[in-house]
Amino acid sequence: MGKYAYGVDIGGTSVKIGMFDREGGKEDFWELRTRTEDHGVNILPDVAASIEKRMEEKELKKSDIIGIGIGVPGPVDSKGTVLQAVNLGWGAFNVKATVEDLTGIRCEAGNDANVAALGEMWKGGGRGFDDMVLVTLGTGIGGGIISGGRLLVGASGAGGEIGHMHLEDDEPVQCNCGCFGCFEEYASATGAVRVATRVLEATEQESVLRGREFTCKDIFDAAAGGDAVAQQAVEKYGYYLGKGLAIIASVVNPEIFVLGGGVTKAGDTLLQLLKPSFEKYVFPGAGDCKFALATLGNDAGMYGAARLVLQ
Amino acid sequence: MGKYAYGVDIGGTSVKIGMFDREGGKEDFWELRTRTEDHGVNILPDVAASIEKRMEEKELKKSDIIGIGIGVPGPVDSKGTVLQAVNLGWGAFNVKATVEDLTGIRCEAGNDANVAALGEMWKGGGRGFDDMVLVTLGTGIGGGIISGGRLLVGASGAGGEIGHMHLEDDEPVQCNCGCFGCFEEYASATGAVRVATRVLEATEQESVLRGREFTCKDIFDAAAGGDAVAQQAVEKYGYYLGKGLAIIASVVNPEIFVLGGGVTKAGDTLLQLLKPSFEKYVFPGAGDCKFALATLGNDAGMYGAARLVLQ
Repeated sequence: MGKYAYGVDIGGTSVKIGMFDREGGKEDFWELRTRTEDHGVNILPDVAASIEKRMEEKELKKSDIIGIGIGVPGPVDSKGTVLQAVNLGWGAFNVKATVEDLTGIRCEAGNDANVAALGEMWKGGGRGFDDMVLVTLGTGIGGGIISGGRLLVGASGAGGEIGHMHLEDDEPVQCNCGCFGCFEEYASATGAVRVATRVLEATEQESVLRGREFTCKDIFDAAAGGDAVAQQAVEKYGYYLGKGLAIIASVVNPEIFVLGGGVTKAGDTLLQLLKPSFEKYVFPGAGDCKFALATLGNDAGMYGAARLVLQ
Repeated sequence: MGKYAYGVDIGGTSVKIGMFDREGGKEDFWELRTRTEDHGVNILPDVAASIEKRMEEKELKKSDIIGIGIGVPGPVDSKGTVLQAVNLGWGAFNVKATVEDLTGIRCEAGNDANVAALGEMWKGGGRGFDDMVLVTLGTGIGGGIISGGRLLVGASGAGGEIGHMHLEDDEPVQCNCGCFGCFEEYASATGAVRVATRVLEATEQESVLRGREFTCKDIFDAAAGGDAVAQQAVEKYGYYLGKGLAIIASVVNPEIFVLGGGVTKAGDTLLQLLKPSFEKYVFPGAGDCKFALATLGNDAGMYGAARLVLQ
């Protein structure tokens, strides 16, 4: 019976690989450069070769390894087929079967945001909860839904792709996905800048944000420093975030939302900002819902990938 | 090893009970009156006694029975605890344990709408699909989400309670749940009447619907008969329905929506009406989604209840 699982998180610039014991103790960790050239044909062979090399160094046999879990930046269905991963140059193929052929070791594959949700449930902010939604507030919004301890993968691997849930009508700016008014157009870090820009445009009031480029962090810093316009902007941001989470809660009834990504550097402030609109819009039967911050940061995907083969 | 499962669907006026073989063949069927007096204390003892009587008549032993599945009109968590069932007079208690004590036979319990989704997946409009959402368009909107062949129960049994998902801002009429702008305020049968009333009020145009009380069926009939105002009303109804389903699809990525309830008497027309707004609002990665009509009608809950113990 195997003792260790590898968790592999494939990103657009680097691949993070961790070796974990059954309880999630991290026994080894390293990174590789992601070779995206030639449509990323080298990525999985690089991963396989580096795991084999590391196993040799540690004198591990195949029978010591429970499996290899892989998180991929694209939709992955329940059979381990990625449909497309633009950042890696990948089209559609079966990641699970490919890695099993390369290594002779059992493999499972999942979408990186979904896998991160598994990681946060296992060892992070969602520890101890079986019904959890991870919401990653970065450049866009990623998400992963866990129901009864299992990932909601969806028919084509797009389960939990909550960033593109429709939130607002009458949005003039098109989202990357082609729609108008997606959740991430308002509640991502980029969305926060858009929201603040609109608040600025609607008032003559002075603000440290006026007349310059600013980031999501600048907005939250200015609000914390007492800038009235920035305070309006973060309240409006919280309104959109709470409204989106309320809709998700009304559909899937999680016990806890775990929030990750760059925007959560604002910390508990963020949780306070989203609550009024969350409570306004959520179905009362699903409203008794906790909120927590993610704790694993960029390691969540690696933990969750290992968890894929340890369940 | 047992051969048969009982599926029990408890409604506010009657209890439907079916006996099924492992393949879903219906071997027996009967109904009981639901005795809701005295906070419904007699309901489960009545069910237990009538199953035992029927087993005696058919000379079945306990070892012939795989289990008893029960659908309840209220939220039921994954441990079989109902939180409240207003129509039965029930408060919180464990249905599963109660029926197991009464009968000595294994029991599982679930929310009636969720259980109906299982039934439609097993033997109805969702047959052959593992990622399915049942949407029941009746007086309100009920729903059940199945992901990877398993029910999404939710933390407090409110998973799939999509009728109370927030859909529209600025709604002046309060929903039964206490919120404003819920999906079922527009896309239930009652919602269709509200939508048509508003369309009528916004125009001077003649209509067979003007100046009288009308039902959802009247609206669809009038539209089919060429009434221009009724046609606007059903288009608007389809807009809301498609928008709501698009939001759900963007969150849970089903392979198929199965539509049931009284409104679906409109048949394929309904599917045509919802498609334009569904396609407008859905995340493209989750947009390749089928639609079908439910086929089991009021039997869906009974089938699904049996399925609870046959999985």
